[in-house]
Amino acid sequence: MPSIFTKIAQGEIPCHKIAEDERHLAFLDIRPIAKGHTLVVPKKEVDYIFDLPDEDLSALHLFAKRVALAIGQEVPCARVGVSVLGLEVPHAHVHLVPLDSRGIIDFRQKVDMSQQEMAALAQAIAERFR
Amino acid sequence: MPSIFTKIAQGEIPCHKIAEDERHLAFLDIRPIAKGHTLVVPKKEVDYIFDLPDEDLSALHLFAKRVALAIGQEVPCARVGVSVLGLEVPHAHVHLVPLDSRGIIDFRQKVDMSQQEMAALAQAIAERFR
Repeated sequence: MPSIFTKIAQGEIPCHKIAEDERHLAFLDIRPIAKGHTLVVPKKEVDYIFDLPDEDLSALHLFAKRVALAIGQEVPCARVGVSVLGLEVPHAHVHLVPLDSRGIIDFRQKVDMSQQEMAALAQAIAERFR
Repeated sequence: MPSIFTKIAQGEIPCHKIAEDERHLAFLDIRPIAKGHTLVVPKKEVDYIFDLPDEDLSALHLFAKRVALAIGQEVPCARVGVSVLGLEVPHAHVHLVPLDSRGIIDFRQKVDMSQQEMAALAQAIAERFR
């Protein structure tokens, strides 16, 4: 069965898309822990990120860098942090999380954003993506 | 002034080293949040990881992958997570954290390990490094 991220990549499930290329997709996390919290996924469905071949792992992180730079330009933050964790979705994904001055990533923290806010933010970040 | 990680890389400050090449160093975090919690640093002293040129960022993540696979072989864990965060040390570093079945990374969690335990664990992981 395709993972939820594959379904998103295939357009079966909607997302607030930020950027996409042939091998990757970036979109806002539906349960953000900070405004601009984004997921970057390889379209290749691999469960554990370290099972990705070297070339795919490099490409994923270079794509994530471009997304992170766009987030950092759009969202007021000290910088953008990175996290790869979680076991629920068997499809590797990189969390990009804007950090405040405390510099922490706390997954128990949730921010409320309307779908309208999410859509506007995704579009604004997408416009910064190079 | 050289960062604490540069001082560690230069041997001025001791560490429980796991692996090293010309451009990278991996060693156990002195305040581990899990047994096997490791820091991977580029020897090039760059504050923000996304300021690394693409080639350096790729090399860092590929080195980190090799370290993560070694940790995963030595430390009982569901898998090894990744985190880049924090603003205290102005020298980019990647946290590799063995995840238990909850799949979380919690930086408020600390594990007590003696220096002797740390040394033995670093050596055991180092022997797995390929």
